[in-house]
Amino acid sequence: MDIAHYMQTVGHNARHASRAMARADSNAKNSALRAIAAAIRRDADGLVAANQRDLNAARAAGLEAALLDRLTLTPKGVAAMAEGVEQVASLPDPVGEISDLKFRPSGIQVGRMRVPLGVIGIIYEARPNVTADAAALCLKSGNASILRGGSEALHCNQAIAALVHEGLACAGLPADAVQVIGTTDRAAVGHLITMRDNVDVIVPRGGKGLIARLLAESRVPMIQHLDGNCHVYLDDTADPDKASRIVENAKTQRYGTCNTAESLLVARAVAANLLPPIAAMLSGKGVEMRGCPETLSIIAQARPASEEDYAMEFLAPVISIKIVDGINEAIEHINRYGSHHTDAIVTENHAAAMRFLREVDSASVMINASTRFADGFEYGLGAEIGISTDKIHARGPVGLEGLTSQKWVVFGNGEVRA
Amino acid sequence: MDIAHYMQTVGHNARHASRAMARADSNAKNSALRAIAAAIRRDADGLVAANQRDLNAARAAGLEAALLDRLTLTPKGVAAMAEGVEQVASLPDPVGEISDLKFRPSGIQVGRMRVPLGVIGIIYEARPNVTADAAALCLKSGNASILRGGSEALHCNQAIAALVHEGLACAGLPADAVQVIGTTDRAAVGHLITMRDNVDVIVPRGGKGLIARLLAESRVPMIQHLDGNCHVYLDDTADPDKASRIVENAKTQRYGTCNTAESLLVARAVAANLLPPIAAMLSGKGVEMRGCPETLSIIAQARPASEEDYAMEFLAPVISIKIVDGINEAIEHINRYGSHHTDAIVTENHAAAMRFLREVDSASVMINASTRFADGFEYGLGAEIGISTDKIHARGPVGLEGLTSQKWVVFGNGEVRA
Repeated sequence: MDIAHYMQTVGHNARHASRAMARADSNAKNSALRAIAAAIRRDADGLVAANQRDLNAARAAGLEAALLDRLTLTPKGVAAMAEGVEQVASLPDPVGEISDLKFRPSGIQVGRMRVPLGVIGIIYEARPNVTADAAALCLKSGNASILRGGSEALHCNQAIAALVHEGLACAGLPADAVQVIGTTDRAAVGHLITMRDNVDVIVPRGGKGLIARLLAESRVPMIQHLDGNCHVYLDDTADPDKASRIVENAKTQRYGTCNTAESLLVARAVAANLLPPIAAMLSGKGVEMRGCPETLSIIAQARPASEEDYAMEFLAPVISIKIVDGINEAIEHINRYGSHHTDAIVTENHAAAMRFLREVDSASVMINASTRFADGFEYGLGAEIGISTDKIHARGPVGLEGLTSQKWVVFGNGEVRA
Repeated sequence: MDIAHYMQTVGHNARHASRAMARADSNAKNSALRAIAAAIRRDADGLVAANQRDLNAARAAGLEAALLDRLTLTPKGVAAMAEGVEQVASLPDPVGEISDLKFRPSGIQVGRMRVPLGVIGIIYEARPNVTADAAALCLKSGNASILRGGSEALHCNQAIAALVHEGLACAGLPADAVQVIGTTDRAAVGHLITMRDNVDVIVPRGGKGLIARLLAESRVPMIQHLDGNCHVYLDDTADPDKASRIVENAKTQRYGTCNTAESLLVARAVAANLLPPIAAMLSGKGVEMRGCPETLSIIAQARPASEEDYAMEFLAPVISIKIVDGINEAIEHINRYGSHHTDAIVTENHAAAMRFLREVDSASVMINASTRFADGFEYGLGAEIGISTDKIHARGPVGLEGLTSQKWVVFGNGEVRA
C-alpha cells in the first residue's frame, strides 16, 4: 500500500472511530484507560525489551546522547507511564457539560455543550512515554488520535499501541480510536498535516525546528508551542527576598524546560540594590550573565548582551539581563522580545501588578510567582498535552478541556424565527 | 511604495495599535464607537455620494445585479449602520474578565483573564456596511483590525474609514486601531493572510469560493465559515404541527442565508403521514423537492435527488429529502453530508433529542426549533462577525467573545516551585 493511500485509510478510520468516541460514556473511557494501565504493568518486560531493540538500533545509527536518553524506557519509566494513564482516568470527563443555558425572547433556550474536537494528530519525537500519555488524554477527551512518534521509537511505540488496543477492546471501544503510525516513512507526516477532512487539529511536541517546519506546511489547525523565552521583571517596589527567590527558582531549578526564565529585567531605581545579591547567587550556580551596559557597570562578572540574546531561549545556564526605566519599558520589551509563553513581575504595587497582568501578551502572566509554575499539573489541569503559545483556542498549558470545544445547543418547543 | 512594503507597514502599525487597544478601558472604546456613529449620521450624504461613485464604476464595469445590490448604500442603510455601531457600544466589554480563580496546593492562585486576540484581518466582499460593523466589533473587543473589502466599494469604504478615525481620535485611541486597505491591488490579500508576526487571526466573510481560496493559502489562523448545508430531521415521534412549522420556517423564511435548511430527513415510520402536508406547503411556495426513491413514491411532485444534492447548499427554493431508518441513519447522514453548521431534530422523545444533541457534529444543534435561529442576535451575542464552521476556538456565531481568548493569570506572594 503506498503511503498516501495508507494515511488516507488511517484518517478515514480515525474519523469513523471519532463518532463512537464522541458518544462513549465516561465509564467506558475510564475502563479502557484502567485496562491500558494494567496491560502496561503486566507487559513491562516486553516494553523494556522492545525499547532495547530501538535503543540498539539507535546506538548503531549513532544517535546523540540526549536523544538516546529520551528514547530510553526503564522499568521505572514503565511504572510511571501506567500511573499517568490511571491519573487521566481519575480526571473529570469534560465532555457533555452544558453551560450558560438561558432563555431568549423568542422562547428558545440557548447554551453551549462541550464536545470533543474529533480527530487529533500528534507528532512527536522518539519518546515512548508520550505515546501512552497522548493516547490517554485524547481518549479521555472523547477524541480519536493518530500518533506519529519519532521513527527511532518504532518498536516500543508499536508495543504500546498493542496494549492500548487491548484496553480499548476491553471497554468495547473501537481500536481505531488510537492509531500509531506503523511506518517510518517521513512522508506520513506530510499527509497527516494536510488531511483537513479527517484531521481536526495537529498537536506538535518537539523542538523548535520540527514545529516551525510543520507550521509552514500544515493545512490543519495546529496547537503549537514554539519556544519559551520567559521573563522575570523586578519592579521598583519589588520585595528583595521574593525577587531573589523567584529569580533563583525561575532560572536555576531546571535549565532545559520551556517555562525557565531566560531573561531578567530590573527597574533602574532598584537595580543597584537588587542585582548584586542575585548576581552572586547566579554566579555561584554557574549561570552565565549577559547584560546591557548598565548591568555591566553593576555586575562585574556579566558579559555584554547582544540584541539576539534578548530574543534567545537558551535552555542552558545562561541569562540575559536588562535594566529598564520601569514598567512601561518592561512591558514593551517583553512583548517585543518574548515568545508569549510565560512572564512574571515581582512587585508590591497593585497598580503595576494589574497593568503587567493585562498588558503583557503572554499565555501565562504572573505576579510574584516563579515562571516554573506554568504547567498543567501546577495549574490543576491534571496533565497536559502541550503548552500553546498560539492565541486562538487554548493558550498556555493544554489539558483535557483544550482538546474539546463548545458547540451551541438550542432547546425549543416548536419555535420558529419571526 | 510597493505592495509588500505597504502591507508590512500596515501590519506593523496594527500590532503597535493593538497594544494601546488592549489596555484601553471600556469608556474610551464606547466613546469612540458613539463618536463614530454620530459621524456616520452627520455625513450620511457624503457616504451615499461616495457609494454612488462606486456604483457608477461598478455598473460601467458590468457588475451583476446581486453584487450591485449588496454594494448599494441607501440613506436607510447609513442609519442602520450608525445604529449597529451604537448597539456594539452598548454591549458589555468582554475584556479583562477574570474567571475560575482558585488556590492551588503550592499557594499560588490560578485563573484566566479574557484578553483581545491582537490584530484581526477581515476580508470581505464589496459591502460597505460590513466595514463599519467589523470595525466596531474589533474595536469593542480591544483588537486592532485590518479591513480589506471588495475593491468595488473602495470610495465608500475610505469615507467610512475617515469617520472611524475621527471617532477613534475623539476618544484618544490610535488611528491605526482600524486600518482600511487603501489599494485595490489583489496582492494585498496574499500578504495579509501570510503576515503571521503581525496578524493573529483572519476572518473571511464572503462566498465559498473566496474562503476556500484563502484557506488554501493562509498562514494565519482563520475563523472560517465555509457553507451551511443545514438539516431538519423529523424523528418518528415528531409532533406534526411542530414539524411542518419548523420545516416551513427553516426552508422558506429566507432562501439565501446560511442557516436555511437545505435538506429534510424523515423517519420511515412517519414519512407517509408527515410528508404529504409538508410537500403541499413547500410546493405551494414554489420550492423544488429532490427526493430519494421512497420520497418519490410519497410526493408526486418531487424529482429524483442525486448524491450531490445531499451535499449541496442550494441557497435557493430547492430542498433535498431523504427517508431514513431512524435517528442512527439521520445522525450518520448529517455528519457525512452536512457542513457542520446547524442541524435540528423534531422529536417528542427525550433520549432521541439528547442523542442528536450530543452526536451531531455541528456548530449549532437544535431540538424542536428552526435552524434559522443560528444567529448572533438570536443567541444573545448582540452582533456577530461571522459564523464559524471550524472546530477549534469559536464554533457557530462569533460575537465579541469569539474575538478574544483567555490567558492564564497567576497571583502569588513569592511562591516558587518545589
